[in-house]
Amino acid sequence: MSQFSVIPWNARSWLEVSSQSDFSLQNLPFGIFTSNGRTEPRVGLALGDWVVDTVALFDAGLLAQVPGLNRTHLLAAELNALLSAGSLTWRGLRAQVAELFTAGNSTLLKNSDLHSRLLVKQSEAKMRLPTRVSNYVDFYSSREHASNVGAMFRDPQNPLLPNWLHIPIGYNGRSSSIIPSGVPFKRPMGQLKADTDPAPIFAPTKQLDFELEMAFITGKETALGETISAQKTDDYIFGLALLNDWSARDVQRWEYVPLGPFLAKTFATSLSPWIVTLDALQPFRVNGPEQTVPVLPYLQTAGPQTYDIHLEVLLQSERMSEPLRISRTNFKYMYWSMAQQLAHLASNGTNVDVGDVYGSGTISGPTPDSYGSMLELCWKGTKPIALPDGSQRKFIEDGDTVIMKGWAEKDGVRIGFGEVRTQVLPAG
Amino acid sequence: MSQFSVIPWNARSWLEVSSQSDFSLQNLPFGIFTSNGRTEPRVGLALGDWVVDTVALFDAGLLAQVPGLNRTHLLAAELNALLSAGSLTWRGLRAQVAELFTAGNSTLLKNSDLHSRLLVKQSEAKMRLPTRVSNYVDFYSSREHASNVGAMFRDPQNPLLPNWLHIPIGYNGRSSSIIPSGVPFKRPMGQLKADTDPAPIFAPTKQLDFELEMAFITGKETALGETISAQKTDDYIFGLALLNDWSARDVQRWEYVPLGPFLAKTFATSLSPWIVTLDALQPFRVNGPEQTVPVLPYLQTAGPQTYDIHLEVLLQSERMSEPLRISRTNFKYMYWSMAQQLAHLASNGTNVDVGDVYGSGTISGPTPDSYGSMLELCWKGTKPIALPDGSQRKFIEDGDTVIMKGWAEKDGVRIGFGEVRTQVLPAG
Repeated sequence: MSQFSVIPWNARSWLEVSSQSDFSLQNLPFGIFTSNGRTEPRVGLALGDWVVDTVALFDAGLLAQVPGLNRTHLLAAELNALLSAGSLTWRGLRAQVAELFTAGNSTLLKNSDLHSRLLVKQSEAKMRLPTRVSNYVDFYSSREHASNVGAMFRDPQNPLLPNWLHIPIGYNGRSSSIIPSGVPFKRPMGQLKADTDPAPIFAPTKQLDFELEMAFITGKETALGETISAQKTDDYIFGLALLNDWSARDVQRWEYVPLGPFLAKTFATSLSPWIVTLDALQPFRVNGPEQTVPVLPYLQTAGPQTYDIHLEVLLQSERMSEPLRISRTNFKYMYWSMAQQLAHLASNGTNVDVGDVYGSGTISGPTPDSYGSMLELCWKGTKPIALPDGSQRKFIEDGDTVIMKGWAEKDGVRIGFGEVRTQVLPAG
Repeated sequence: MSQFSVIPWNARSWLEVSSQSDFSLQNLPFGIFTSNGRTEPRVGLALGDWVVDTVALFDAGLLAQVPGLNRTHLLAAELNALLSAGSLTWRGLRAQVAELFTAGNSTLLKNSDLHSRLLVKQSEAKMRLPTRVSNYVDFYSSREHASNVGAMFRDPQNPLLPNWLHIPIGYNGRSSSIIPSGVPFKRPMGQLKADTDPAPIFAPTKQLDFELEMAFITGKETALGETISAQKTDDYIFGLALLNDWSARDVQRWEYVPLGPFLAKTFATSLSPWIVTLDALQPFRVNGPEQTVPVLPYLQTAGPQTYDIHLEVLLQSERMSEPLRISRTNFKYMYWSMAQQLAHLASNGTNVDVGDVYGSGTISGPTPDSYGSMLELCWKGTKPIALPDGSQRKFIEDGDTVIMKGWAEKDGVRIGFGEVRTQVLPAG
């Protein structure tokens, strides 16, 4: 793990950071924000309840020793320029912020007049998409999810397709419809056709679903014709975020043969605003499930390849006063690792851009309460979920808000992702 | 057609333009170029054998009356800023260039010292991708192509899938691997598995194929949640170019169930450098094939919706001294129109960006010499093409160059696309 830059595990901040906060000193995730008085988007790092304004730090002369850093990397509507400056630069920035905020460092403490310029309350910050996304790809890497779908729609005795255990299956998504947490969307219209209908109708989807996913975001590009070794993918992965891959199941069923899901997925994809660095997650590295069929050499890796990240999905109707947790699972259940996904993706020489978003696919665990979509949780509508407002859900209704959270935790140190929260508005 | 701005049909240029040139005064397509002495990319318009340097025109004060135009629209590595300025601006620019170069206009004629600054030989210009592509989508809109593929791989008696006559089927492609004409790529590696093999191998594709397509490029954006009426799509389509949707058939067959083609398509997609405006194509507007099944109201259009554009594919091996034409077809054969493709795409509220590329899908005509891929021309390898160098082709071999050309022609006026030309290099 020598290539990673991990903030000392026992360091604490002089700034008050609750032990329940997702944003410990060891986390320091990156995002893009604006606030009152900061109308130009800029790079921020989250710490406790605060956003650290990197432009203000730069202007105070406190980032002078960060190699290769200049102000245009920070006063930017996306992280792409900072990431393109190289890992020495963004790692140097994160390390310097950690140092400035570590208990015992007096640089900022003795300049308390700086604090109001450097620190913005998260409740007063407006978060944007963290990167400009050239490519958005979605994988399909949970064996439990693929098996559940196969059992429901094909053959319960033989739910996996023949290629699934050989290929980290994925497909291209639509970059422009990725939206940040907090942005609502309208229920999409689409062509719907039951098997017994003579012809399709055009109507609002009746089977709107979420998919609980994580996404990795690339921090280093490749040229067309280059590949990425499965042993070297960590050099290309900047960090992770939470992703809700919204899906219209009825649209998908009618449109997806033979070229895959299209309009069933392109109306909205929600991304959490803070990218947690792969560096911050190193202490949580664990082995994934055993791969039961040997993989081809270009997909072979050594050592633990996944991360112990707790995940949950909450649902809140407009009549509920607080959300209900409807699923609890873990990122470590994924069969195919990020290393395998990225090595596979690049194995044909396609070029990777900085800021690309690569979704994991729906994350379903082994038990029915750990499934990552309504389709699976309600088993195709046969097991509706009862809500505390007296209603039932088989899929997502107008006005519902879906919230996804994720965090890793060990020895009292919490590395969290915050949340991705999205409300569904009526069609039209 | 009142929304279009068409250059007078009888106008001719004082600049010598061959009647065989793709780039008549009525065409004036847009591209991005550099040349010796012009290291910063800029907007050019093609006329005869020349590129008109719009930055030089601007600096000479000759574009002052173009509404909303400023220099940063022209000194730009992509057309996005110019297009985002609005159609009054880019139409005004094209009209002004037409006027300056029309016989009888003496503004430039009497300033012959300007000519060397304004005009660059196309043979000395290096063309780039015309737009920054946020979304690349590929449709599947030729009934002949879909039927040929269905007959080969499924059921010759019933080759179309049930959804095909109801939906302009499409899928998301990968934006970053779109390359301009003239850029070679390496034969991709991929997972290959014949039905009789026990497991896949990882090897260079044995079935590299081209797909002859046209693409439309959007010039106007929509917000998330907006839709586009099938009667209004012309407002959003800036122009067309030639597209070669390179495909690895063996990779595709093993990977594509259930989420569609992925690595079989993402290693390279070649685009011609000049975008011919929809305006320039208006005189060639014709009816497409009759749609034999009624379409849903959101896909209904009025009047002719396609264009009479001749297309051909040429192949040249390294041992051939000139290319051999292997296919000749026409854009007008497409079953689904661009209007229907765009209205369908936006029907779920997905947002369209300026500069998006929307491929038509393989363009195959009704006769075997008009098919748009090697898969169809050689009918799955059963009818190899004999080349003049004594070799045969079932698919594309290393060293081969594939060239696609397109043009519309009437009353001695030719509106051409130039070409998209790509050489295939060996794997590794």
